Parts: sequence; structure tokens; C-alpha cells
Amino acid sequence: MQTATNELETKAKAAKAASRKLAYLPTEVKNRALLAIAEAIVVKQDEILAANSKDYNESQASGMSPAMLDRLMLNSSRLEGIANDVRTVATLPDPVGETIEERTLPNGLQISKKRVPLGVIGAIYESRPNVTVDISVLCLKSGNAVVLRGGKEALRSNLALATIIQEAAYDAGIPQGAIQIIESTDRALVDHMLKMKDAIDLLIPRGGASLIQSVAEKAAMPVVTGGIGVCHTYVDKAADLNKAVAIAYNAKVQRPTVCNALDTLLVHTEIAPQYLPLIAQEWAKAGVEMHCDERTLAILKSLPSLKLVPAKPEDWGREFLALIAAIKVVDSLDEALAHIERYGSGHSEAIVTEDKTAATRFLNEVDAACVYANASTRFTDGGQFGLGAEIGISTQKFHARGPMALRELTSYKWIIIGDGHVRT
Amino acid sequence: MQTATNELETKAKAAKAASRKLAYLPTEVKNRALLAIAEAIVVKQDEILAANSKDYNESQASGMSPAMLDRLMLNSSRLEGIANDVRTVATLPDPVGETIEERTLPNGLQISKKRVPLGVIGAIYESRPNVTVDISVLCLKSGNAVVLRGGKEALRSNLALATIIQEAAYDAGIPQGAIQIIESTDRALVDHMLKMKDAIDLLIPRGGASLIQSVAEKAAMPVVTGGIGVCHTYVDKAADLNKAVAIAYNAKVQRPTVCNALDTLLVHTEIAPQYLPLIAQEWAKAGVEMHCDERTLAILKSLPSLKLVPAKPEDWGREFLALIAAIKVVDSLDEALAHIERYGSGHSEAIVTEDKTAATRFLNEVDAACVYANASTRFTDGGQFGLGAEIGISTQKFHARGPMALRELTSYKWIIIGDGHVRT
Repeated sequence: MQTATNELETKAKAAKAASRKLAYLPTEVKNRALLAIAEAIVVKQDEILAANSKDYNESQASGMSPAMLDRLMLNSSRLEGIANDVRTVATLPDPVGETIEERTLPNGLQISKKRVPLGVIGAIYESRPNVTVDISVLCLKSGNAVVLRGGKEALRSNLALATIIQEAAYDAGIPQGAIQIIESTDRALVDHMLKMKDAIDLLIPRGGASLIQSVAEKAAMPVVTGGIGVCHTYVDKAADLNKAVAIAYNAKVQRPTVCNALDTLLVHTEIAPQYLPLIAQEWAKAGVEMHCDERTLAILKSLPSLKLVPAKPEDWGREFLALIAAIKVVDSLDEALAHIERYGSGHSEAIVTEDKTAATRFLNEVDAACVYANASTRFTDGGQFGLGAEIGISTQKFHARGPMALRELTSYKWIIIGDGHVRT
Repeated sequence: MQTATNELETKAKAAKAASRKLAYLPTEVKNRALLAIAEAIVVKQDEILAANSKDYNESQASGMSPAMLDRLMLNSSRLEGIANDVRTVATLPDPVGETIEERTLPNGLQISKKRVPLGVIGAIYESRPNVTVDISVLCLKSGNAVVLRGGKEALRSNLALATIIQEAAYDAGIPQGAIQIIESTDRALVDHMLKMKDAIDLLIPRGGASLIQSVAEKAAMPVVTGGIGVCHTYVDKAADLNKAVAIAYNAKVQRPTVCNALDTLLVHTEIAPQYLPLIAQEWAKAGVEMHCDERTLAILKSLPSLKLVPAKPEDWGREFLALIAAIKVVDSLDEALAHIERYGSGHSEAIVTEDKTAATRFLNEVDAACVYANASTRFTDGGQFGLGAEIGISTQKFHARGPMALRELTSYKWIIIGDGHVRT
């Protein structure tokens, strides 16, 4: 443990030192480094794939699930995709140095507010090795140094990728030490990392709910939490039935294992008899299991070939991450709003309605990172929102909310230029 | 303690409920409430002053220092000043509902990012009763509910003010419960408050360094820390001597007890023999005690009537909050930057120079909320910066940095409007 702690302390200190220079590095140098990283990932793919297949084989032998194995696995075309994502980040505008506000006061003082990097970002993540690349390049572009702590199961892959990133970046002029990866897999090390608030300015946990919660509770530095999405779609009495079917189907079925997928469908009692059979039959074709309240069951029970289960209290507020949806009939928009306030996780919530007043109330009153009228919650994503990339989806209100891209990895600084000005 | 905990839990819950409605209250209602509060503070001044003189007499009897007594004391003209500050906040733009970004995607989805309140702000503060008014009105205007926990010594004054604020606000249409003040003075209550992350969205501690540090360490919710200013002024070899004297004099003398006052003067060795006698004589006239490094002492020791003390190691990085300054001669801009990096608190730092390259390096490389070229650090203030008001000065990088005004009490929400859009 002592050796591991030393490794962590030394690397974090080196990242902090590098971050000072990285903070005002010209955009061209950062972009050149990103392109060099993209190229190196393709050129040196044999190294990466060799390391990855060791991780894969070991995980397979130890009984990892096929879904998890698939997340761990790299191949030539996946690496090509990762390299392309890096090239995309190179094309995005550099947030650092951007002037947010500017004014000249009556006394002649020039005051401006300029974006600056946060400093050192710590990342604690699981399984998928592409996260090593994603986080490194977003931090680099936003002028932040990074300390990476990936999962044990992907250690060899992560080390291979980080080494290639480091070499390419430093050769292109990124300050030595800006990208750090922790090699020790000692679990106690994470607790130590969470205390290092002088070296790490922001911590980003990426993984399951228990990892995120534990990091948020213990960390001495700011943490951006998110990624837990208990998402509702409310079908109002004034909904267009076709839109409501298409939206709820897409939100549940298009990719059920992610945080912006539908978990609970709320349906207004006046439209329920028409709407519920339509969506239930579509969902059934896709294999969706429906956890229904009593009124929903009463409407659906006579239909053939549906996977119906009576809803238990714990189904409300549950993130299924699977082809399962909870369904509840409500008497009013107010009841839907109250249900979402009680059970939502502040991620993405949608209303389907042609009634503008109802839509406006929903958009105003629901307290979530992303609120939708007549669209699928599956759009909550930095790429889909036109931000080009994302480091995660924040469900907190502080600092950043929703998809976090380059700007959200910055702070700002007030710059005041005078000519001998004193306060009177 | 049980009663106190119940009071806190009940009031925080009521604040949370009120915050839901307050979040989308029209600007006119909020401004009307602010004007009503301002008027009530003047009209009902007898109640406030009666409560305040009880606090004052009790504190005087228990041996409070004259400086602290002065901070505690209210009178008719101070209340008039406080009421005017409230009227100023009514004239400021409402940050809530402001569209920060807006775009229509190629698929027709309309995406906008709109400012929303944070929710419930908890404030823990000491001594000055005007803080009760400042925080309440800034929170109201930014659509946040507030839970106030002031110091024991000002309890009667704070309760009188808060009661008047509540009555005026609720009469004007602010949701009942939006302004809460804790009456119990049980110290253990603060620790309980720091755990209530479901009810309180942001905590603002205002007071001494030990209060702020203890809150930051223990709070389960986000905290904005700040107000601790270890501020340096660096006089470069290319400084204009007159400007350098005026700026350092102003920064130290104009109001020495506040966070943006000068603590350490750094002087380039080439200009030190000319500059140090000039500033030292001016400072001496104002009664400034100078804690000097050896090279400074060598230059100043033969001058008459100076209060010179050899600097101890703990003088570097110390916030004096008094007519005391530390002085150090440095060999280069780099040495000045290294000293500031090591000892600064990230609040306000200044360079005095006519050399644009040196100024640019300083403004780029110093990592502080406010960086100055050729101006006094005393300008770090929401009012001085043209923000109209401030709830504090943040020395952290996360969420907000420097003077925190209305905008800094908000978050944002992504609003997505479609017409049946689904993700493909």
C-alpha cells in the first residue's frame, strides 16, 4: 500500500505541475497532440490489441458476463472509431481563453472574465478501455491535466493506451506529466485519492451507482456525479397517439442499457384506454417486460402475448437498464409532476402533448437536467446536443448540468487591467 | 437538541417546497417583494433597533471587542443604507429564465439552455445582521429559497429582520416558507445542517477561516468557500514608481480589515532600492507595521520612523486583516510567480509594471480568482465589478469564482422541444 500511495502522490504532483503550463498552451499545440494521439492509436494497434486480449482472456476465464466482455473488447475497427473521436475533439473550439464577459468601468478599469482550465481532473472508472482515451483527450483539449484510475479488469489495455497517448502528446509539445495513469490496482488507493484535494481539482467517477455514490460521499474535492437516469415519459391526455407510441418505443427500446432510456411510463387516465394497448403491443414485439400498476393491468390484461407483471413499490424510481418498463396511470398532469419529483433522478424527463400550456408547465416545473416536449429522452447526449463530445452527464445542479463537454471542464478568471487605479 | 433538529428539518422542508414555486415566479412579483422589504425595514425600524440594542448590550457586557460591536450595531442610517441596497437588487436583471444557448439541430429539435435557480441555499454566518438581509434578497431575486443560521450574538436582530422580510415578502406574493431562519442557537445544529443534502442544495458559510474550513470539510452538499484572501502585489522592475506607491498604499491602507487588502508586497531587486523607501514612508504615515525579509531590512533600516519587524516564515501566506504587511525582495518575475503559487489563497493578485510581456505572463500564469495589472486588489467586489451585489467572493474554481452575484446563484436546465422526434 505504501508503494501504491507513493505512486499516486508522485503522479498527482507531476500532473499538478504540468497543469500550470498546460493552462495557457496554444490551441495549435493541443490540436497537434490530439491528431498525433489519433494516429498513434491506429499505428500502434498491435500493442494495444495484444494487451487487450490478455485482459479479455483473463476476464473470460474468471467468468465475466458476455455483456461486460463485449464492453472490454477492442479490435481494429473499434480502435479506428476511437481514433476518429479523437480527431473530432481536435476540430472543436478551444474553450480556454474565451472571453465570457467584458466591460470597461466608468473609472477606466478594464474587467474581463476569461475561461481557464480547472487544473487536474481525477477520473475513476470501470471496464471500458475507450474511457481512457475519451477522458484524456477531453482534458487535454480543455487544458487540464488528468490522473486516470481505471478498473483492474482493463488494466493492461488502459496502460497500453495511456502509454501511447503520453508518448504522442509529449512529443507534440504537451508538458511532461500532464497525463498520468495509476498502475496499482489496490482498492484502498481510491480512498486515498479521494482525500487529495490539494492535487486533484475535480473528480469524475464513471461506473455503477455504488461507485458514484461512494465517491460522492467520501471525496474531499468537488465531484461531478451523474449517469444515473431514472427517466419518465408522461403521455398527456392531449397527446398525439402516434407520436406518443414512437417516442416511448424509442426511449425504451433503441438502447435499453443506457442512462437516458425510459424507465417509467406515466399515462393520463383519459387517454390510457386508447394509448396503452398501442404501446404495449409495440413493446411486446421488442420483448419489453411491463411492470404495471392496477389500472394499467386492468386495461392490458386481456391482450395476448404481453409480458405483464404487477408493479411493486420498488419499481417506481428504479433504473432498469434493460428491456423492462414500469407503467402507471395518473389522473392529471399534477399527479405526473408529483410522481417525477418524488422518483426522478434529475436526468431526463419527457412529456408528450399537443397542449402548449401543459407542455410549458412540464418544462418549467420539472427539475431535471434535460426536460423534453414531444421527443425521446434518448437524445440526452453531448454528441446529439451538438457539443461534439462529452465526459459524462451531470445530474447535479452545481457547476454543470446535463451533458458535460469541453466548456464544463473549465472555470474562469477575472482579469482587471488598470493604469494605476486605486479604490476610493 | 431534538427540538432544535425538528425545527431545522421542518423549516428546511418548507423551504424546499416553496423553492419549487419560487423557481418560476414572475420577475415583477419578486421585485415587488424586494421593494416591500426595503420599505418595511425603514417603517419598522423601531422593532429592529430595539432587538439590536438588546444584542448589543448583552455582547458589550460579555466583553465583545469594539470592532465586533461596531459590526453588530444597527442604527437608523445603517438601516436606510440596507434598505437602499435591497432597492438596488430590485433594479438588477433577473437571471432566471435567461437563455444561455439556443440551437435548432438539423433534425428540427429545438435545444435551449436556460438559467434556473439552485433550489434552497443554506447560509451559516456570524455577527453582522445586515447579512440576513443581503442573503435573503439575493436568494429571493435569483429564485432560491433560503435557510438562515446566523450567530448567537445577533440572534434577536436577525430574527427581527427575518420576520419583517418574511411578512413583506409573503404579502407581496412570495411562496410561504421561502425564507427560513433557525432560532435555536445549539452549536451541534450546524453539524446536522451540513448533512441535509436532500433539503439544502448549496451551503454558503460566511465568517472566519475556521468556520469556513469546518463547513467545507463536513458538508455533504456543495459549499462555496471563499473570503480568505492572502493577496500579493508584485512591483516589477519595469514598474512606474508613482503608480506602484499609490497601488500598494491603497491596497494595504484603504480598508485593512477585509479580504482583498494587501498582505505581502513583492519587489523586484532592481527597483527595490528606489521603491521600498517611498512606499515604506507612506505606509509608516498610515501606521503600517512592516514584516521584512533580510534584503528589505537592509534597504529600510536606516530610515527614520518605520515600524520594521524581521519577517518570520509564517508571515508568508498570512492574512493580516490589519495594518501589517509582509515585504520580500525577489530576483525575478519567476520568483514572484513561484511565491504567489506557494502562498496565495487564489483570491486577488496584482502586478505593477509598464512591461506588457511581464503583465501578460502574470495575468496568464497566476491561478487566482482575480488577477490585476496596475490596479489595487481592493477592487475585488461585486459592486465594484458592476455586478450590483454579491453574496461572497469564491476562491474555488468550481461553479463560481470571484465575486458571486445573482447569476452565480443559478444553475441551468436543457429544454428540448420536438415534434415526435426519436433517436436513430
